[in-house]
Amino acid sequence: MKNNLRILDTTLRDGEQTPGVFITSDEKLKIAKKLDMLGVDVIEAGTAITSKGEQKSIKQIVDEKLTAEISSFARPIQKDIDAALKCEVDSIHLVIPTSDLHIQYKLGKTRSEVEEIAVKATEYAKNHGLIIELSTEDATRTEIADLKRLYNKTIDAGAQRLCACDTIGLLTPEKSYEFYKELSQLKKPISVHCHNDFGLAVANTLAALKAGATQAHTTINGIGERAGNTSLEELIMALETLYHKKTNIKTQKFHEMSKLVETISGIKLQPNKAIVGENAFAHESGIHSDGMMKNTSTYEPIKPETVGHKRRFVLGKHVGKKIIHEKVKELGIKINFDQTEKIFQRVKSLSDMGKTVTDVDLQAITEDVLGLDHENLITLEEYTIVSGNKVTPTSSVKLQIANEEKIQADVGVGPVDAAIKAVQKTIKEETNIQLVEYHVDAINGGTDALIDVVIKLKSEDKIITSRSTQPDIITASVEAYLSGVNRIITQNKKIIKKE
Amino acid sequence: MKNNLRILDTTLRDGEQTPGVFITSDEKLKIAKKLDMLGVDVIEAGTAITSKGEQKSIKQIVDEKLTAEISSFARPIQKDIDAALKCEVDSIHLVIPTSDLHIQYKLGKTRSEVEEIAVKATEYAKNHGLIIELSTEDATRTEIADLKRLYNKTIDAGAQRLCACDTIGLLTPEKSYEFYKELSQLKKPISVHCHNDFGLAVANTLAALKAGATQAHTTINGIGERAGNTSLEELIMALETLYHKKTNIKTQKFHEMSKLVETISGIKLQPNKAIVGENAFAHESGIHSDGMMKNTSTYEPIKPETVGHKRRFVLGKHVGKKIIHEKVKELGIKINFDQTEKIFQRVKSLSDMGKTVTDVDLQAITEDVLGLDHENLITLEEYTIVSGNKVTPTSSVKLQIANEEKIQADVGVGPVDAAIKAVQKTIKEETNIQLVEYHVDAINGGTDALIDVVIKLKSEDKIITSRSTQPDIITASVEAYLSGVNRIITQNKKIIKKE
Repeated sequence: MKNNLRILDTTLRDGEQTPGVFITSDEKLKIAKKLDMLGVDVIEAGTAITSKGEQKSIKQIVDEKLTAEISSFARPIQKDIDAALKCEVDSIHLVIPTSDLHIQYKLGKTRSEVEEIAVKATEYAKNHGLIIELSTEDATRTEIADLKRLYNKTIDAGAQRLCACDTIGLLTPEKSYEFYKELSQLKKPISVHCHNDFGLAVANTLAALKAGATQAHTTINGIGERAGNTSLEELIMALETLYHKKTNIKTQKFHEMSKLVETISGIKLQPNKAIVGENAFAHESGIHSDGMMKNTSTYEPIKPETVGHKRRFVLGKHVGKKIIHEKVKELGIKINFDQTEKIFQRVKSLSDMGKTVTDVDLQAITEDVLGLDHENLITLEEYTIVSGNKVTPTSSVKLQIANEEKIQADVGVGPVDAAIKAVQKTIKEETNIQLVEYHVDAINGGTDALIDVVIKLKSEDKIITSRSTQPDIITASVEAYLSGVNRIITQNKKIIKKE
Repeated sequence: MKNNLRILDTTLRDGEQTPGVFITSDEKLKIAKKLDMLGVDVIEAGTAITSKGEQKSIKQIVDEKLTAEISSFARPIQKDIDAALKCEVDSIHLVIPTSDLHIQYKLGKTRSEVEEIAVKATEYAKNHGLIIELSTEDATRTEIADLKRLYNKTIDAGAQRLCACDTIGLLTPEKSYEFYKELSQLKKPISVHCHNDFGLAVANTLAALKAGATQAHTTINGIGERAGNTSLEELIMALETLYHKKTNIKTQKFHEMSKLVETISGIKLQPNKAIVGENAFAHESGIHSDGMMKNTSTYEPIKPETVGHKRRFVLGKHVGKKIIHEKVKELGIKINFDQTEKIFQRVKSLSDMGKTVTDVDLQAITEDVLGLDHENLITLEEYTIVSGNKVTPTSSVKLQIANEEKIQADVGVGPVDAAIKAVQKTIKEETNIQLVEYHVDAINGGTDALIDVVIKLKSEDKIITSRSTQPDIITASVEAYLSGVNRIITQNKKIIKKE
């Protein structure tokens, strides 16, 4: 493997071609700045010819004067190159279809016509001062002799870098090695561009780099058309951890970068996404978690901090006693062996019934086992909402707070908003608690489906999570909110007692 | 690569160890039956020792007398094996930690103690008539000589199959090939078990099979602890398409199987999940979609039907005119070149503003361009809801239907349910439309966040999708419902006119 491997990140071009994804100019700029901070060598910022909006967006990134080279995608057509020139990019990613299939069905031209077009476009871009990365599209279904002839002609015309695209993800690691080995004999450096249609994008990219490719095309979270592209975070961590190849990428920023792209693109990661997924460093099974507590290397290939992520223990049906003990300790409660055993049995039977055991549940069980009074300082007496398209969403809430009845009303943008605002108004004098996050899991099925509301509340430095599951979204929201508030109050009281 | 490669699917064991996942007995049975129909050789149904519920669940699968061999996971402990025996499984997956790290930190034993335990457990299982697959945990961080010694001892004690687990996903395709090549020299067949911590599980499994491993461990959708396991659908499609190795798996059932596991496990796939993800056969960019229409092979490595999936075209900012033309044709409307151009410009400017263009939007634009009257046969005059914890959720709805005012009221499990029921009651006489699906995207941020409601309605054979985005979930639901109803009515009228 060569030293100084380079990264061309195409989150903003190939990534944005993900069906249904649209990234605004300002969001593109945000992502570009973070990619630059991460340390990628080239940012492919978009396809200038697409629209005026796209041009504005690329220009905005160019104007930021980042360290990374800024590039635009272009077909070998003068108007495409002109559009890129307008944005004042450093380089152009000139893409030429080369397989018989693409030449025949997509372009309706002959191979020699395509070669001529490619040479002319390269000369034109060169004459206008652009760095040229010349890519062959569907290269892995093209005769290698045809590829080489095209590359040699375009090198003579001024292409400084070459790239071969496995456009529909047909490579295997073995084929990728042979293919890029052959292409790395050319006079200019070759890049690898893979797609993940068979889950092999990272492996194929690694094989190409081993064979002599000097630059990899990647996207954050592996987003892109169909099954997406090579994921930057997986590639880099594999290079560093498994191939002991140091890169310049600031891996500690991976989780943050991933979250930014997830939020902006709207492409939600599955929890088991490698490196950056919600579960990448989560542990459930009793056996695993037990080992983990003694030495994190037993079940973790890298430390979560390396990629800016966090370790997480989840209580489920495979839960072990050690985890229960640790978790309860975190709640500020000391328990002995017998008590741990009792709590463990309760958690186990709950999770055996299919219930995920949250912190709130664990606290309730613990307090029950220890005979502590669960101090439901605040209880819901009554709430009512009235709403409609010609009615301002309005809610009244009656709470029992320390044996006193309190009632308030408020309005909101919708009935949930109104009800929560009324709750907040009612308890305002009692607590200094803020709503940090309100989340509802996607609802599927019918209008009578169960709705899972998760609320994060903040009191001073502490953040606690509470939830409620109901077929009525308003009731679930109010219950989750009050359950969290009660837990904070109980905990604060204990701290005061201790002091 | 050997012929007759075998699959041990561990969706119900390693897959179910995904943090937060719990699968009930009945759901496990459903998955097991489908795995059997898919054609896997072994179904690892769970870990019998976990709980009484788990035992009941494994026994229920055994009693179904499926073609596949049914197996239980077990530690090398008598009570684990006894629990499996109680379920009357065909085989046991006996797992022995073998790395220094696991032996020292997890077990606190010496290597020779571990070997003795493994041999005793194997003998015990053998004497009780079980087929034994003996797995070494964290095998890829174990000296190969230590592994071989353990395997040879347990083969002598009665193990019929061996397995080496890359427990924390540290293999590369090269290492995997060397490792399993060495282990395939043993007297019993070896299985490969990979984890996806660096996105290499499929590639590593393929390399092991090339090296002589005869069986692969997989899960549906690649679910499992942390970054999950080797995905069955990716592995099989890579074997069949890229390595030209026919398997017995009914690939046409992959999409259906994937959806079942997604629904039951609650582990949502990212849209760019290979083979079975929502976008695996979706096309957005104008360039790609244009090629696709001429020949699907230009941008598809396999036909979606091969895995029971569907091709999908999405209108976005890279949309092309051909797609517009096709999509409008699907709506039953004929347009000429000029009209296509006009619609194209409207769609493009909409998507340039970041809006995803749905079928409803496209229809509205088309009707507008063609000067057709959009027949909003039904308009919402007024809706009101009253709800609360001591009030039955109640809604009244007043609609204008063909210049006549109609009003109805209904109750529901929550206010959304009540409002939709009232709408349905009001329009019942007019239409024969059913609500097939009600979906709300996950809500994030605050109680005032925008809520995206998507509704699928069915009228005879036609299913149409409509959506509305509002900060008020009830208004969004009612609007989405009525917009879909109006579209169906308009379409039906056109069909009647044509006839």
